[in-house]
Amino acid sequence: MSLLLVAQNRDMKPFRDEILEIDSNIDVEIWPAVSKPERVQFAVAWNHPKQVFRQYPNLKAISSLGAGVDHLIPDESIPQQVRLTRVVVPSLKEQMCDFVLTSALNLIRNTQAYHTQQQRADWIPHQHLPKEEMTVGIMGMGELGSAVASRLQVNGFRVCGWSRSKKEIDGIDTYDNGQLDDFLNKTHILVCLLPLTSQTDGILDLDLFKKLGKPAFLINAARGEHLVEEDLIYALDTGLINHAVLDVFTEEPLPGSHPFWGRKKITITPHIASLTDPKEAASLIVENYKRLLSGMELLHEVDRERGY
Amino acid sequence: MSLLLVAQNRDMKPFRDEILEIDSNIDVEIWPAVSKPERVQFAVAWNHPKQVFRQYPNLKAISSLGAGVDHLIPDESIPQQVRLTRVVVPSLKEQMCDFVLTSALNLIRNTQAYHTQQQRADWIPHQHLPKEEMTVGIMGMGELGSAVASRLQVNGFRVCGWSRSKKEIDGIDTYDNGQLDDFLNKTHILVCLLPLTSQTDGILDLDLFKKLGKPAFLINAARGEHLVEEDLIYALDTGLINHAVLDVFTEEPLPGSHPFWGRKKITITPHIASLTDPKEAASLIVENYKRLLSGMELLHEVDRERGY
Repeated sequence: MSLLLVAQNRDMKPFRDEILEIDSNIDVEIWPAVSKPERVQFAVAWNHPKQVFRQYPNLKAISSLGAGVDHLIPDESIPQQVRLTRVVVPSLKEQMCDFVLTSALNLIRNTQAYHTQQQRADWIPHQHLPKEEMTVGIMGMGELGSAVASRLQVNGFRVCGWSRSKKEIDGIDTYDNGQLDDFLNKTHILVCLLPLTSQTDGILDLDLFKKLGKPAFLINAARGEHLVEEDLIYALDTGLINHAVLDVFTEEPLPGSHPFWGRKKITITPHIASLTDPKEAASLIVENYKRLLSGMELLHEVDRERGY
Repeated sequence: MSLLLVAQNRDMKPFRDEILEIDSNIDVEIWPAVSKPERVQFAVAWNHPKQVFRQYPNLKAISSLGAGVDHLIPDESIPQQVRLTRVVVPSLKEQMCDFVLTSALNLIRNTQAYHTQQQRADWIPHQHLPKEEMTVGIMGMGELGSAVASRLQVNGFRVCGWSRSKKEIDGIDTYDNGQLDDFLNKTHILVCLLPLTSQTDGILDLDLFKKLGKPAFLINAARGEHLVEEDLIYALDTGLINHAVLDVFTEEPLPGSHPFWGRKKITITPHIASLTDPKEAASLIVENYKRLLSGMELLHEVDRERGY
């Protein structure tokens, strides 16, 4: 049996090398150069070509290379009995905490304005927004969202969280599915960390923006599809939202002609909130590969019905 | 007796209003409109005109409006028996923690590069510097420095601290006066929070930069005089230092013609790391004013010999 790495536009050799470093007996192949398709039992996938998994009749499990599985769930060519898992490693969580914290601090401390002023040699101090009066509202209180909530709280932000089923976390006001409006009314800095499902696709729309507290800011570190782009432009133009920090986009790389690039009220980063570290990911991939071969439970297995 | 507020280029009315809000019986005057100079016993000063305090024969104490007293100590017209204090309030510490943390996170996460790339519609991801391998070295482990050290540590940075007399803080390697080289060798992100004294004036020079770990970064949130400006330019040009974040300058506002403005490897903010909040400062000022009148010890009194 073998372990297959499948990705488009991404060099998978560092992942293969780290896997072999852990166990040199594992038979690792990198798509498309697969010598014996019938031996493939476990695949690791990132931005895979549709239908590619049809070629492996004995495939039993696929791991996403990241925390999201929205690229796997909609692929109907993946048989239902193929189990899905994902890579949830401490550094992905830690990096996401750093990204959201950095973004929130930069928003209340006017970092981008100072950078623009520096280019004009302009010395203009601004008052910071009062951190203790800014409530960060996190949509999606799974493993990532809960970690981000705690980190923001430790750093002096008021934090609340919203998720499909209510979570209990010390010191954090949590809301469930039916309490979305209450959650939004309390929120100044909205952070989207939701999984992408049919229920959450396009959830960040004008109707939602109108319910936010004032001033309002948006940080999207989940998926581009969560956001209705034209609604954000409208909300920024009309002052419903003061500023948005976007790390993810419907089309990535974001096309050079996209109107987001030129907006002063949008901060764009090239999907760098969390970058999967090959060494750390390899260790989890090898663990799950061996669990599969031994018939054990997989770590971080995905419920295909729920979508995460 | 009266309480006098003295400042140049700064509106002191919000401070007067907050003081009167706490105790409307206090006689507060704002320089230069002082009706009865002989009644002034306590003064609050920021960027005061030299010699101004000669006009108040019964002055017993002066409070700096901030945490620094380097504008008061060198003024030889202030009689030796006049006691000096400063405003050390929780929000100043909290803001400084936020500033240093934000700056350190932006350095390791390439924030400024992404902002520049956005202006060119350029999508180029960069690896973050590994936070757990970056040691932040804090020069000056007083009230501010110790708070900053703890906050960085909570956020996953390795932290060490250097001060004249060695401090004991859980989980933080501390160094004293004689161990400066050891401290610098361990440090990647050097944070200056020192008081400005004759010993620390010009301490951030080429000789010091050469001893830092690699890669090296500088954050100066203390006083412009700590830094030898031409040595920083040389260190940036030769790669001894990768990037510097400067909030303070020898001349403020930084003149439009200053070479720092145009440097990509320097991030400039207009002395905004910590902004004194009138409400919070007023409460400490009133407390010290009443302590002075009752002959009690003053809070945060300065040792003029030490210089802080």
